[in-house]
Amino acid sequence: MFSKETYTSRRAQLKALLKGEKGIAVFIGNVEAPAQYKDNCYKFRQDSTWLYYFGLDEPRFAAVIDLEDGSETIYADDFSIDDIIWTGPQPSVAEQAARVGVSHSEPYAKLDWAVSQAIIKGRPIHTIPPSRWYNTLKLQSLGIDKPSEALIRAIISMRLVKTPEEIAELDAAGILGQKMHTVARKGIRLGRVEQEIVGEMEGVTLAEGWGVSFATILTQHGEVFHNHGHAFPIEAGKLMVIDAGAESNSHYASDFTRTYPTGSKYTPKQRDIYSIVYDCHELAFSLTRPGTAYRDVHLAVARLMLDRLSQLGLVKGDLDEMVAAGVAGLFMPHGLGHNMGLDVHDMEDLGEDLVGYDPDQKRSSQLGLRSLRMARRLVPGNVITDEPGIYFIPDLIKLWKKEGRPFVNYAALEEGYFDFGGIRIEDDVLVTADGARRLGGQRLPASPDDVEAAMAADRA
Amino acid sequence: MFSKETYTSRRAQLKALLKGEKGIAVFIGNVEAPAQYKDNCYKFRQDSTWLYYFGLDEPRFAAVIDLEDGSETIYADDFSIDDIIWTGPQPSVAEQAARVGVSHSEPYAKLDWAVSQAIIKGRPIHTIPPSRWYNTLKLQSLGIDKPSEALIRAIISMRLVKTPEEIAELDAAGILGQKMHTVARKGIRLGRVEQEIVGEMEGVTLAEGWGVSFATILTQHGEVFHNHGHAFPIEAGKLMVIDAGAESNSHYASDFTRTYPTGSKYTPKQRDIYSIVYDCHELAFSLTRPGTAYRDVHLAVARLMLDRLSQLGLVKGDLDEMVAAGVAGLFMPHGLGHNMGLDVHDMEDLGEDLVGYDPDQKRSSQLGLRSLRMARRLVPGNVITDEPGIYFIPDLIKLWKKEGRPFVNYAALEEGYFDFGGIRIEDDVLVTADGARRLGGQRLPASPDDVEAAMAADRA
Repeated sequence: MFSKETYTSRRAQLKALLKGEKGIAVFIGNVEAPAQYKDNCYKFRQDSTWLYYFGLDEPRFAAVIDLEDGSETIYADDFSIDDIIWTGPQPSVAEQAARVGVSHSEPYAKLDWAVSQAIIKGRPIHTIPPSRWYNTLKLQSLGIDKPSEALIRAIISMRLVKTPEEIAELDAAGILGQKMHTVARKGIRLGRVEQEIVGEMEGVTLAEGWGVSFATILTQHGEVFHNHGHAFPIEAGKLMVIDAGAESNSHYASDFTRTYPTGSKYTPKQRDIYSIVYDCHELAFSLTRPGTAYRDVHLAVARLMLDRLSQLGLVKGDLDEMVAAGVAGLFMPHGLGHNMGLDVHDMEDLGEDLVGYDPDQKRSSQLGLRSLRMARRLVPGNVITDEPGIYFIPDLIKLWKKEGRPFVNYAALEEGYFDFGGIRIEDDVLVTADGARRLGGQRLPASPDDVEAAMAADRA
Repeated sequence: MFSKETYTSRRAQLKALLKGEKGIAVFIGNVEAPAQYKDNCYKFRQDSTWLYYFGLDEPRFAAVIDLEDGSETIYADDFSIDDIIWTGPQPSVAEQAARVGVSHSEPYAKLDWAVSQAIIKGRPIHTIPPSRWYNTLKLQSLGIDKPSEALIRAIISMRLVKTPEEIAELDAAGILGQKMHTVARKGIRLGRVEQEIVGEMEGVTLAEGWGVSFATILTQHGEVFHNHGHAFPIEAGKLMVIDAGAESNSHYASDFTRTYPTGSKYTPKQRDIYSIVYDCHELAFSLTRPGTAYRDVHLAVARLMLDRLSQLGLVKGDLDEMVAAGVAGLFMPHGLGHNMGLDVHDMEDLGEDLVGYDPDQKRSSQLGLRSLRMARRLVPGNVITDEPGIYFIPDLIKLWKKEGRPFVNYAALEEGYFDFGGIRIEDDVLVTADGARRLGGQRLPASPDDVEAAMAADRA
């Protein structure tokens, strides 16, 4: 948690950005999310926008900012003596509100009254879209039928640019994420079951942080992106993609990917593809600086990828035409990166396009580019991921072949790459005044030589 | 997952129990629970009643059983080619339904149609109470306004009695829970932060199981029951309560508590109280057998506890009168135990009283006894926890003193026990044909001598 002044000044800035808007802004903190029943819940995760403006990391808080008179009220319930038997002595809501610079508080149920009064008076109600099922229910019961684009845009404009105190937290989350990845790399041994490594690395995040910043991907089938099963034993000759990150106790995220040869040395074919991904990753980092649109960095990566794949004979044709036709999407059907902050895909609940696209940028419909979550022209303080990858997805390749799409050497892919899997390399990057730097501490080994050297040292 | 026959026969038994009921039974499996936004969810946990009757461990499934003609339909959506890029090839819904013996399946959206048709025809709709916010929304949109007691009672009658294949899963979850507790005990060292141990023990559950069966309690303030903060360094002379369990990959739970001296030896005062709790724990186990009401076991524990506390001079008066007045509730404000199975508090979403009380048993209003979740007369196949504890809760003691409640030596408590903390010992117990046995593998050290010997060995 930051100082009272941090939250007070963030809210002051938000009010300044919304100067001229009528009505009230309603912020609904998260409540507990039951896993099985109301007394057995998932680990509490506060809403990120709430954390940003109000800091308090407890369930069942809400707040109203009056955009006209500037007043602020927190809504939450004090503990009763019955609660205190179970929870121990707790600070009052008024004390907690004061901790973040809000001088007025009311019981939680009074939120309904405040909103209904505003509705009766015809005052606009500004909220963000519901990110959880509870919020859908709550907005329904409050009679709020749509989110406020003005509020969303104001929040995005602030949260997109990380302050020095946020950057310190992101570095800390990065160091923890790198620690979990190092534990994972050391755990790779033929015959072990994937889940064992997942448990070890997630244990690291729980020992020092809130937990994982998203469901860990650890798979010998890197070509399957959302692969959350971990039932397989580690086999020789495979590529293991590990895409995982930590969330710090202050709820900032990290997100790293490395791709390891299960037997500690890449085969020549694996090394060929890995080197392309690595060079794409390095190219993206070298291009990351204020003023450059991240969409253009994505396209530069696509160009290099296609150029190198054509040297391997897997695609053929004019490079400009292939880039324009989106051929890179066959091999990298995802975007180069996304914003990161309090959320690993920062502010995704506020709307992907509003967060990731400048007003004059239009989202592409091409496979790959259409999944780019961050296209904006970069400014200092942006925090983004740099995560190119190459995958050989048999069903997708067969689909393109059936559709007769040009430029692709289908025969070579069918013959040599249907059991290859996939490779991705990802670091977290801060845009600085004149370029970029990687977040976290000591960088995880990334070049093919460095990865093999680290794995050899692990085994020594 | 069990065999097709297991699920088919469970549903057949359910239909037999509901013979004569009109209408349809609607089962709503869980959907993903967003932690921050819809693509960043908590680890998927299927609804336990769904798992029991339909087994399929994937989100966004539902089912209808027609109680009149016995037909069964599963509602879920097949993956599209777009999904398959992200998820890899997936079995069809029809294949999955067949896996659990259901021959008919429909798209998920058709559930609304099926329910509305039944409502239009005036057929009763049987469902269980919503355990998650999504289910509240879904039942609302389906026009289902209240749960069905007939269905709930039938489900409870089945799930209360564990079958041999369930008992094998509970033993496995117990072994995993014991492993996490052993890792925790070995991790106790002065100066370490509590959270480090939590991370290590939860890592064990993730490496071999689904994760924790509930939020780990690991605290040097055992007198605070719902203490999920772990920010404190381990200090000399404290008692550390660790109440934690594992959920296996098949979603059966374990739940153990041990209380360790942070410096590896109990002080004489700690040993006095620990020995009482241990003897209460052993007494409860010795009384656990078919035909005995677990409420009576709770009361026998209360009697022993008060007798021993009076020997220490902390209470005084006639033992029968003290038991009747509920004086034990001051020291143990919770119940002796609860049912356990697919949920750690088994079926709590179905209603605590329906699950834990025989029709002729009325829940007490006394502190402690009123929190007893399992009061029923035991039958073979019941799985329960045996978890007595003694806590010195300053705010509660002060409240009783202020209210002038008799039998308690307030002066002695104030003078010597306000910084004592609390002690709890818990094992999981199966009711057998002629008695009981503890679940899991090698029992965790429980007697004061055994605990100290184990901690000495850990340090050797």
